[in-house]
Amino acid sequence: MHTVAKNTLAITVITLLIGIIAHASDSLIKYPTDYRNWTHIKSMVIQEGHPLHASFGGIHHIYANDEALLGYKTGSFPNGSVIIFDLLETDETNNSISEDQRKVLGVMQKDTQKFKQTAGWGFEGFGAGIPSNRVVGSNYKEACFECHISQKQNDYVFSKWRE
Amino acid sequence: MHTVAKNTLAITVITLLIGIIAHASDSLIKYPTDYRNWTHIKSMVIQEGHPLHASFGGIHHIYANDEALLGYKTGSFPNGSVIIFDLLETDETNNSISEDQRKVLGVMQKDTQKFKQTAGWGFEGFGAGIPSNRVVGSNYKEACFECHISQKQNDYVFSKWRE
Repeated sequence: MHTVAKNTLAITVITLLIGIIAHASDSLIKYPTDYRNWTHIKSMVIQEGHPLHASFGGIHHIYANDEALLGYKTGSFPNGSVIIFDLLETDETNNSISEDQRKVLGVMQKDTQKFKQTAGWGFEGFGAGIPSNRVVGSNYKEACFECHISQKQNDYVFSKWRE
Repeated sequence: MHTVAKNTLAITVITLLIGIIAHASDSLIKYPTDYRNWTHIKSMVIQEGHPLHASFGGIHHIYANDEALLGYKTGSFPNGSVIIFDLLETDETNNSISEDQRKVLGVMQKDTQKFKQTAGWGFEGFGAGIPSNRVVGSNYKEACFECHISQKQNDYVFSKWRE
C-alpha cells in the first residue's frame, strides 16, 4: 500500500473510533459534581431486616436539581431533571446513628430522547461515590427501572417533597 | 390640656412605642423562609438512651446559607451566617427510620453587633416549625450558647462539612 493510502486509512479508523467512543460517552450519565448544593428532598435509614437492606442498607439522602424540584412539586419531571440517591454507611453508637463512608451515589436522570425504553429515565450508580466506578452501566433497565415502574403514577419517582 | 398639646403627646407616645417594638423585633432572629433550598451539611438520628434525647430525639438535618457554607469550609463563620437545625420526629417501622412531623426548627445566626455576649452567635427555636412559636427567646445564652462553648475551636459550631 502507498504511504498516502495507509495514512488515509489510519485517519479513517481513528475518526471512526473517536465517533464510537463519543457516542458511548454520550449515552452515559455524567457524574454529578455539584449535587451537594442541590435541594435536599428527604432522608431515610434502612436497617438490617428491611427487604432492601442488601442493596440500600444505611442512611440515604435524596437531592434534586432545579428541574427535578419542579417535578417534585408538579408531579411531572421535565427533561434535565436529575435526582440523587446518596447512600452512606451508618455508625451506630451511643444510641445515635451518624453518617459514615459513602456506599453508592445513585443518579436518576430524565432525558426522553436518550432513554426511550425506560419512560425517559436513565440510571447509574457510582460505587463509593467514585466517578469511574460505574456499578449499573447498560443494565439500568433491569437493575433500576423495573422497580421504579411501581411508581408510574408519580413519574417513576419514589421520594416525595415535604416542606 | 389643649388639644394641640394632647395630640403632640399622643404622637410622641406612639412614636416611642413604635421605636420600642421595632428595636425588640430587630433583636429577634427571623424565621428562615427559604432554608429548604440551602446546602444540606449532614444528618443524624438521636435515639432513646442518648443523653440529648429529651431535647433532640429524632432525625435532624443541618442546613447552611452561603455565608455559613463558607464558614464550614474555612473554620470561621462570617456575619450573616445562618445554620439550621431541622429536627423531625421519626417513624420507625419495618426496620427502617423515616421522617415524620417537625419537632423544632433551630436557628443559629452570626451577627457580631447584635450578639456580643455570645461570641457573635444568636439562637432561636421554632416549636413544630411554626414561625410564631418561639421556644428560646431571650434565654438563648443559657438554653443554647453555653453548650456550644465546648466547640469554641470550631467557631462554636458542632457540625462539620463532609463531601
